[in-house]
Amino acid sequence: MSSHSDNLIVEPVARLIEALSRLPGIGPKSASRLAFYLLRADAQQARNLAQAIQAMKEQVTLCVRCFNITVDELCPVCASPTRDQTKICVVEEPLDVLAIERTAAFRGLYHVLHGHIAPLEGIYREDLKIEQLLARVRSEPVDEVILATNPNTEGDATAYLLLKDLAPLGVRVTRPGRGLPTGGDLEWADPATLGAALESRREL
Amino acid sequence: MSSHSDNLIVEPVARLIEALSRLPGIGPKSASRLAFYLLRADAQQARNLAQAIQAMKEQVTLCVRCFNITVDELCPVCASPTRDQTKICVVEEPLDVLAIERTAAFRGLYHVLHGHIAPLEGIYREDLKIEQLLARVRSEPVDEVILATNPNTEGDATAYLLLKDLAPLGVRVTRPGRGLPTGGDLEWADPATLGAALESRREL
Repeated sequence: MSSHSDNLIVEPVARLIEALSRLPGIGPKSASRLAFYLLRADAQQARNLAQAIQAMKEQVTLCVRCFNITVDELCPVCASPTRDQTKICVVEEPLDVLAIERTAAFRGLYHVLHGHIAPLEGIYREDLKIEQLLARVRSEPVDEVILATNPNTEGDATAYLLLKDLAPLGVRVTRPGRGLPTGGDLEWADPATLGAALESRREL
Repeated sequence: MSSHSDNLIVEPVARLIEALSRLPGIGPKSASRLAFYLLRADAQQARNLAQAIQAMKEQVTLCVRCFNITVDELCPVCASPTRDQTKICVVEEPLDVLAIERTAAFRGLYHVLHGHIAPLEGIYREDLKIEQLLARVRSEPVDEVILATNPNTEGDATAYLLLKDLAPLGVRVTRPGRGLPTGGDLEWADPATLGAALESRREL
């Protein structure tokens, strides 16, 4: 029955549904809704989307210094003359850079690892930009490295491994505080978060 | 602050996020998640998606007879020699054809209106494939027209208008039954559905 109705989806539409449903968070239903939307959209909008995808893949590269995304040799942060050159904030992904920039609480540099250590997923130390980070700490005037990997098991493991690498280099190594999310409800905090918050309690 | 961090999104990525967030059901957050996913995806996957979008726009046209989507002159339903040529099921969109085909309960032909009457949205009678439907009913051996527009205000209004057009042509005009959805819970049915179900009650 389903194969019968599937035959009615003309091949170019089926191919687009298939390509869309490979995207994260887009199931077969959303994929077909999007495909039919694009089918009705004006040709210009569809072309814009297709070209934006290809242009991004062709033009965007990684910053030669911090591995953030960029269209030039250096990313906007590394190229800025006003950033504090003595602090490097280490993150897992380029999106994390944007999240931290949005806080306006950090004016130093970044280093994007492009992942976290996860041997079970086949992601090892050499798959991350770790050697490049150590080289920067050795050659740049860095006095603090903030390990802002994700506050979960893989992020913690990656931070711990980096701490061991960084310790001999005589640089201050920190990790963002763990506690209750601002604006959250204590009642709804998960036990791990609440436990970490109690452990890191401070005198008022 | 937000303009500051937005400056850090390199232009090709910003352009893709913008194009993605124009899609229905995709907000700025999902759009940036998708853009960064595509950034990391291998070049082949991104190219596949871009090409699938463009190929679809270039290759897919409307069936000259029923206005369903097709890559040939006639859609697969119209081209099939086994379909019942005496029944036309009128639907709003090509996706509705797929929904009905999935039931395997209908073996006749379709006619896709490409919308519903909605004067407030600027969609008038002449924007839909209504004259083309009337021409088919006059020239093809049709004995029943099933008005399967959506079971909502616009769909009902469109069906009512079509009924007035079709009545003089001496063809049987029907509309799918209204009632409780199969597998649903009476307790959760909305008042309009429950009311329609009671009105269309049948002797057991």
